[in-house]
This record gives sequence, structure tokens and C-alpha cells, in this order.
Amino acid sequence: MPEPRLAGWRERADAALARVLPDPDASPRRLHAAMRHAVLLGGKRMRPLLVYAAGALFGAADEALDAPAAAVELVHAYSLVHDDLPAMDDDALRRGQPTVHVAFDEATAILAGDALQALAFEALAAAPLADSVRVALLGTLARAAGVAGMCGGQALDLDATGRGGALAAAELERLHALKTGALIRAAVRMGALCGGAGEAELARLDRYAEALGLAFQVRDDILDVESDSATLGKTAGKDVAQDKATFPALLGLDASRARLGQLAAAMAEALAPYGERAAALAALGRMAIERDR
Amino acid sequence: MPEPRLAGWRERADAALARVLPDPDASPRRLHAAMRHAVLLGGKRMRPLLVYAAGALFGAADEALDAPAAAVELVHAYSLVHDDLPAMDDDALRRGQPTVHVAFDEATAILAGDALQALAFEALAAAPLADSVRVALLGTLARAAGVAGMCGGQALDLDATGRGGALAAAELERLHALKTGALIRAAVRMGALCGGAGEAELARLDRYAEALGLAFQVRDDILDVESDSATLGKTAGKDVAQDKATFPALLGLDASRARLGQLAAAMAEALAPYGERAAALAALGRMAIERDR
Repeated sequence: MPEPRLAGWRERADAALARVLPDPDASPRRLHAAMRHAVLLGGKRMRPLLVYAAGALFGAADEALDAPAAAVELVHAYSLVHDDLPAMDDDALRRGQPTVHVAFDEATAILAGDALQALAFEALAAAPLADSVRVALLGTLARAAGVAGMCGGQALDLDATGRGGALAAAELERLHALKTGALIRAAVRMGALCGGAGEAELARLDRYAEALGLAFQVRDDILDVESDSATLGKTAGKDVAQDKATFPALLGLDASRARLGQLAAAMAEALAPYGERAAALAALGRMAIERDR
Repeated sequence: MPEPRLAGWRERADAALARVLPDPDASPRRLHAAMRHAVLLGGKRMRPLLVYAAGALFGAADEALDAPAAAVELVHAYSLVHDDLPAMDDDALRRGQPTVHVAFDEATAILAGDALQALAFEALAAAPLADSVRVALLGTLARAAGVAGMCGGQALDLDATGRGGALAAAELERLHALKTGALIRAAVRMGALCGGAGEAELARLDRYAEALGLAFQVRDDILDVESDSATLGKTAGKDVAQDKATFPALLGLDASRARLGQLAAAMAEALAPYGERAAALAALGRMAIERDR
């Protein structure tokens, strides 16, 4: 079942991002251009969509969700710029486009990532929301971006790279719970916080978001094996080439697909009490599991 | 005239930083160790001292100033880690210690910088301050760290490197007003905001902070010419070697020293209405101008 609101929210997110990013004609132009390249040339906007969908579940207006939606995507985009650097994953292709350090240069890519992170917090601090909500959003995003979240997960990934099969499946799940899961959890929480969700609701949504984040990654690993670079818009087969630990490598493809089924069930269970009101979140869950790129 | 409070504030800042930085014995250890290396192995703590001194001028308690003091130093420390990277200034020595990418590796240095920036905002979001103050502090720090501040200035610096003398003195001042000035201005503003300073006071303090920030940089450039690496704790003579635009190169040493005198007068003028109550800020201004490392 298609979810009619997703296309509109995707447009809202793109508009919010274009608004908050610096003017490409203002100085320093090269930095501004690199930031816009990193953010505006595609991307599924999964995290902004989660902000809108979780916010809508609790009755938040779309206008209240623009800043958190943009902020979480800015953090995601900066992390991709830095992950693609030669010292990290050394990737030349992203979303079918040259990565920032290839299109510009390495110093500009480092700096553009740094500036995108700062911009995320700037956008949140300036959001038209109550002070108490802004503080909650800022804290949620900062924790998800830092050592207990995305950066911590990336560090675990650096430690694990090159010792592929030596990682246990549980370790790999922990790695992804931090590296990609924390920001996905934050996106859902941020939307819900804008709608005034309480602790019990937030905990329930965490279960949905954790399953979605892990499903997203399992699917990513399967696609890396099964797909080609043109379809993916990034370099396929990279995980095997770098001896990265992946779910197909550790569990096999069949068991990886079975894990996706378990995660779909976990999402459905977490969303069950909301019924049709959670249709957009349910649709995003299906997208994570069924996508081909 | 020595200012007796500075030593105590320096200790407070170090303690606040040690508290907020991640446990070196927890996973991912290498990332945590790199972050602590970047922050705890020295540094003048000029920015935290400015937070405490500006806060004290408006009656803020030291306890209220610990989080903003730590946050602004975390942003400063992350910027040094990234500026020292091979793709940027490629520096091996900082504060008399190997830089983070030398002591660890390049990927860890990129990541440690990223995580330090996130930690700065996390610490502010969790500060024991009113929501309205936290939002103001978060917005102030994010703006100062981003394209309209530190990252923008670093981008201008990248553009200018290699064309040393081709830069006009006014362009060089603008570069530094962003690259180092914005964060110094933010430090002073953040302290003042914790004490409830109004717009007129903040504008006055901006004038003090702008002069101090520029003086700090002029002095830095003079030291790079006159001093040696052992005294500086970082590589001396680097600016000339990289054909960087510097004040001594553009104006000559005598005119650079005269500019320091003008900046000292500007600071004194800005602080005059506060008399002895601004003694700590005045002492920090003198330190910026008279320091030999």
C-alpha cells in the first residue's frame, strides 16, 4: 500500500534543506558549494521522512517538523562525506555522483562535513518551537551523533574492518545499532517529541526504530552483494573487497533475508497499538526492507 | 597585575572537560583515547577562561559556567585536530605533543574531531541552566562554529594559502575574524548570556572580543616568526614555509606590533565602563598580547 504523504514530506524536507544551506553565491563559495553537493544531490531522505511520520502520529504540524527533519539529514549527510574520505572508506561514488572529496578536494570535504554538523545544531536552535522542545531535540541529536551513537559506531566499524568474519553477528548488530541505528532512532524520537509524546510512547517507538535501522543495514549488505554500482548509485561489492563484516558474510544470504522478516514483525508489533494512524511509519519500515537501492 | 581567579578557573575548565569526555576504558577505546588526547594534553584554555570571566562580570556562578566553558573548548580542540590533518595544515606537533593523526591515525583523527563537536552540543544541552539560556548558548556556539564563523574562516584560509602576499591586510583580518574570532566572541557571549547580559552589553563585549581575537592572531603570527618550535610547542616558521598570509608578512614586524597596541586600546575602551569588575577580562586581553607561546 503506497503512503500518499511521503512524496509531499520528501519535497518539504528538500525545501527545508535548500533553505537552511548557505547561499552558493556567497563567500566562501567553494565550501558552500561542497555542502550543497553533499546534501542536495539525491538521497532517500529516510531520516526526515521518519521525523515527519513520527511527528504526524502525535499530531505535530509539518511546519514544526521542518527544522528537525533538516537537522537530522544534515548530520547524516556530513557523516557520509567523512566516511567517504580516503582515510576512511575511500569511496569515489555516492548517490550516482562523485563524492565531495572527489568533486572538490579532501580539505574542503573535511570542512564541509564539519560545517554541516554545526549547521544541523544551528537549524535546531533556531526552530520555531518551545525552548523545552528545542533543548530536548538538541540533546537527542547530539547524543545520537556522538560517541554513544554514530561516531562510536563508525569507530567500531574501523576496528572491525579487515577482520571481516572474525566479528560475531551480535557484535555486528551492536556496531550498526550505533553507526546507523542511533540517528534513525533520533529521527523518530525528534518527530515524536515535537508532538509531545511521553516516555512510554518514546520507548515503544525506539523498538520500531531499532528494528527499522537494523533492517535498513541488513538490506544494505544484501544489496552490496546482489546489485551493481549503477543501480545502487554507489560502489557495489565494496564490503567484500574491504573485508568488511556483513550480515550475508556472517549469516549467509538466506538467514539474512530471514532476519529481515523478523525485523518486519518487530516493527509491526511496536506499531500495532496505533493502527492506521501509524501507516506512514509502517510504509517507511516496508521501504527499508524492500528497497533495491 | 596578575588576576588571581584565572588559575582556579583553568582548573575548573580542566575538571569539566575531564568529566564530560568519554571514559578511556570504555569501548570504542581508541576513539575515546584520541578525544582525550586532543583535549587534555595542554592548551591555554583561553576560551573557557573567557566564559568564566565574562560570566563573572554579570554575576553568573562558576557552576553555571562549567558546561559552556567545556563546550567552547571542545569545539576549539576539534578544530585543531582537523586543521592538523595531512589534507589541511599537515602538522605533526601541537602543544608539544604529537597531533592526533600522528599519535593515532588519520581516520581516528577525523572521527575524534567529529565526536568532539557533537560532545560540545551534548554538554550544552545537558547543562543545569534554564531552557531559554541553553537554547541561546546552543545557537551562539553553532553559529560561531559553522560557515559564518570558524569553518567559514578556515575555508578562506584554504583559499588564501599559497598566495601569501596577494591577500590584503583587510582580507586577512576578515579571515581571522571568522577562523578564530568567531569562537572567541562566542565564548565571551556565552559567559555573559549565563549572567543575563542584555543586547547592549553583548554588543559592547563583542567589541572587546573582536579586538582580543585579532590580537591573539597577530601575536601568533609574530611568534611564528620570532620563536622556535620547542618554546611554541608547535612547528615554528610554518607560515612562511607554507606561504601563508600573515600580519608580519603583510605589514612588517613593527607595524604588526603597533597593531597590537591599537587592539589593546580597543579592549580597554570596551571594558572601561565596568572598571575593576572587568579585571579578569582585561587580564586575558593582556595575556593574548604579551604571551610568548
